Amino acid sequence: MSKQKRTAIEPTRADNYAEWYQQVIKAADMAENSEVRGCMVIKPWGYAIWENIQRVLDGMFRETGHRNAYFPIFIPKSYFEKEAEHVEGFAKECAVVTHSRLEDDGKGGLKAAGELTEPYIVRPTSETIIGASFAKWVNSYRDLPLLINQWANIVRWEMRTRLFLRTTEFLWQEGHTVHETAEDAMEETRKMLDVYAKFAREYLAIPVLTGEKTESEKFPGAVNTYCIEAMMQDKKALQSGTSHFLGQNFAQASQIKYQNREGDFEYAWTTSWGVSTRLIGALIMAHSDDNGLVLPPKIAPSHIALIPIYRDDEEKKAVLEACHEIEEIFQRQYFEDIRIYTELDDRDLTGSERNWYWIKKGIPLRIEVGPRDVAQRAVMLARRDLEARDKKSVPIADLKEEVLKSLREIQDHYYNNALSFREENTRKIDDQKEFYRYFTPKNVNQPEIHGGFAASHWCGAAACEEKIKEDLKVTIRVIPFDMPEEAGSCIACGKASQKRAIFAKSY
Amino acid sequence: MSKQKRTAIEPTRADNYAEWYQQVIKAADMAENSEVRGCMVIKPWGYAIWENIQRVLDGMFRETGHRNAYFPIFIPKSYFEKEAEHVEGFAKECAVVTHSRLEDDGKGGLKAAGELTEPYIVRPTSETIIGASFAKWVNSYRDLPLLINQWANIVRWEMRTRLFLRTTEFLWQEGHTVHETAEDAMEETRKMLDVYAKFAREYLAIPVLTGEKTESEKFPGAVNTYCIEAMMQDKKALQSGTSHFLGQNFAQASQIKYQNREGDFEYAWTTSWGVSTRLIGALIMAHSDDNGLVLPPKIAPSHIALIPIYRDDEEKKAVLEACHEIEEIFQRQYFEDIRIYTELDDRDLTGSERNWYWIKKGIPLRIEVGPRDVAQRAVMLARRDLEARDKKSVPIADLKEEVLKSLREIQDHYYNNALSFREENTRKIDDQKEFYRYFTPKNVNQPEIHGGFAASHWCGAAACEEKIKEDLKVTIRVIPFDMPEEAGSCIACGKASQKRAIFAKSY
Repeated sequence: MSKQKRTAIEPTRADNYAEWYQQVIKAADMAENSEVRGCMVIKPWGYAIWENIQRVLDGMFRETGHRNAYFPIFIPKSYFEKEAEHVEGFAKECAVVTHSRLEDDGKGGLKAAGELTEPYIVRPTSETIIGASFAKWVNSYRDLPLLINQWANIVRWEMRTRLFLRTTEFLWQEGHTVHETAEDAMEETRKMLDVYAKFAREYLAIPVLTGEKTESEKFPGAVNTYCIEAMMQDKKALQSGTSHFLGQNFAQASQIKYQNREGDFEYAWTTSWGVSTRLIGALIMAHSDDNGLVLPPKIAPSHIALIPIYRDDEEKKAVLEACHEIEEIFQRQYFEDIRIYTELDDRDLTGSERNWYWIKKGIPLRIEVGPRDVAQRAVMLARRDLEARDKKSVPIADLKEEVLKSLREIQDHYYNNALSFREENTRKIDDQKEFYRYFTPKNVNQPEIHGGFAASHWCGAAACEEKIKEDLKVTIRVIPFDMPEEAGSCIACGKASQKRAIFAKSY
Repeated sequence: MSKQKRTAIEPTRADNYAEWYQQVIKAADMAENSEVRGCMVIKPWGYAIWENIQRVLDGMFRETGHRNAYFPIFIPKSYFEKEAEHVEGFAKECAVVTHSRLEDDGKGGLKAAGELTEPYIVRPTSETIIGASFAKWVNSYRDLPLLINQWANIVRWEMRTRLFLRTTEFLWQEGHTVHETAEDAMEETRKMLDVYAKFAREYLAIPVLTGEKTESEKFPGAVNTYCIEAMMQDKKALQSGTSHFLGQNFAQASQIKYQNREGDFEYAWTTSWGVSTRLIGALIMAHSDDNGLVLPPKIAPSHIALIPIYRDDEEKKAVLEACHEIEEIFQRQYFEDIRIYTELDDRDLTGSERNWYWIKKGIPLRIEVGPRDVAQRAVMLARRDLEARDKKSVPIADLKEEVLKSLREIQDHYYNNALSFREENTRKIDDQKEFYRYFTPKNVNQPEIHGGFAASHWCGAAACEEKIKEDLKVTIRVIPFDMPEEAGSCIACGKASQKRAIFAKSY
């Protein structure tokens, strides 16, 4: 593949997408693999993005009436066994604590000792352990709705791991709520999905699809699973958040009963919903380019890199003075609901090295402050969404307005880019041959890269879904809410179908 | 013991301190024990206090140049074995993960399967796992200082547990830093201890002592451990935070080496420091009374309970209107750096029931809004630090100022109360018989309650410390920084001593 120009990240997306992803993370210094199987170390630049995700979502959860709490990391095996589908879904990949101490192994090392009478599972999700508390907390309809959220670490012994996307340990939030009626629980399930969609669109600048999962893709133990689904730049789908209507399944498993308005006891209705550090993977793959990480301003840990340029002490003095003046301008300044942060980078490196350092980290704006600019009371402003060489002289007097306007434009630019990309790579397909062609790799070097999303009819049969999966490794990612009813024939079996589903390869 | 009046919490502190503690937590709905051995469930009111602790401390850590990151929860056994004192200190009480899945046990249940080649320990502290990353991150003196903090959950298989004070799982922050020189590392160790002391005094209203731990009480693997130490209302000491100078011990164990300014490679100098959910236990035991939880305004999840009182719909309308007006007054209002939150409690309960509900939860202020008050554009203001019946009529026009003033007074009141209590219960003791008498329980029903803190001479010998511990269950809690040098004789052996230490029973 011929290259137009040298890029900061090698390989490029077009050359090797999977490796490009790893290199973007490395170049931005966001995370690294640890020697603990499948566990990552989240470095400060990556963790700061997670903190921003937490802060914004936490505010949204609070506004919708939820309160945070914390439940044990360990789940007794017996709790886990209470919901059959649930245990089936998680038992194959979980960390099991069997001992409570280490003792001398007689060979100069240590061995596990103090065997537990009942093994504990490190939580792969908390429905059963939280359910045990809810059973105590809920007595009457007056106790409902019970709206709880937990920020926690989760462990699933995944076989193939990839930074942020799939790791043995990851960080997440899990909402768990209890309701009087099925309608109330369903309303909550949909409300929280809307919160996720709003967050993904307005903060992460990711135009997610919202809708329902099929039976085979839903959460183990749920009645219905709803999701936000995003398209990555390799045209694969990434499930970015899920909200589950659990019916009375977990209420029965955990004995969450309440006295209703008529004085009778009945099982409550529950929901759960979560997003995780996987969102950082979504963010990277939705926006980043061959020069590294790209961050929408509303989720960036920092917004402006200030790069002083000088040759001698006299220039240094004037230039740094201007830098401090600019820091002052943005001190406690907000871009909408986001506080603006600046990074003064006065390291002993060339201007180009410092510019590229911040380009690779995805900082939205760079401001170069040189002696000639300062003499004219101006600075050079560069945007991460434009070419690195596209700099614009801005008078210091206008800088605040220009920065606020640029941040808004950059945020919109990324969203619109991602939306166009998804639209360009989504096709209504009614012909089975065309469907199979669509999902056949075009490039032998990147067999994972295929056509994109197909909006095709599906009759609802699990067998049809399974056949497509076996033939093409393509699955139904979501049955979108906004997909109109429409007569057609199932892409797999040709039988009558009322609705299209979104088929794609996925992470 | 005769009672002067009925109290909201039974038993009282004087009757049964340990049980009183549990009942305060229950009445304030802060936390409960789970069925998972020694693990607690932190309920919303308790967790909100932890979130406030996190928010304030996190800001202080950031101001002192630290960045947050996240490291794996699992520590390979081989990492753990690298520092001899360290493993000795933690191996006896740790959760060991030995398997990676559950499988059918042939008897209708599940058993652990997929044995790991190397067991993992659930982190009891993270020096060794973080050290493995630091060894990669640090290459040159230019990479130093490296200033990292982690907010995480921790597991120690404690034998006797008590809510917040000692639990198998707890939440904490652990700072880990790397420095060029011993001096730099020591400066960091002391700086972070000062941060903790400032936080405890100004936010938790706890007048902590600061100083050094003796050899027998220091962190396993540390060269020096410094601490903040508080007196609880049963006159026992509670270690509330520690900061460790680790010398080169952990740098050697993890091979954290750097190229110094002369071009030679040498081991770096490291520190670690932490506070945990134990601080919530300290908060409860430092201030709460026989009517329940007491919360300093600067750490309270919410500040004002608004209690409307009415008999009919007409009164209801006027009273609720006034309540909303008051909510408006405090919307986005700050008390110093703390945002004020109000709770409108319009539940179908008597005014007295609602008042006592909030008294037991420790909310600093209660505002009763009744029809006669509203007619006069006034409300009744009650303070948690005064008698429940001490209410004061305040014109709505003056309410904001009165509330701000009251919050400041309450904050100071609690600090001063705690300080007086500690001073009244600290005694310089030079006579061994008096020392032994001081630590003999006065009340046979509460054998744990004793004299308080003794400031007594200690020669520095571990044997003397050990003898006092065996005889009286009294240990040296801290050698305070501000204790003047002074000639005396060791309280245990009578040999010459240059300094007093603080002896006490402790949690």
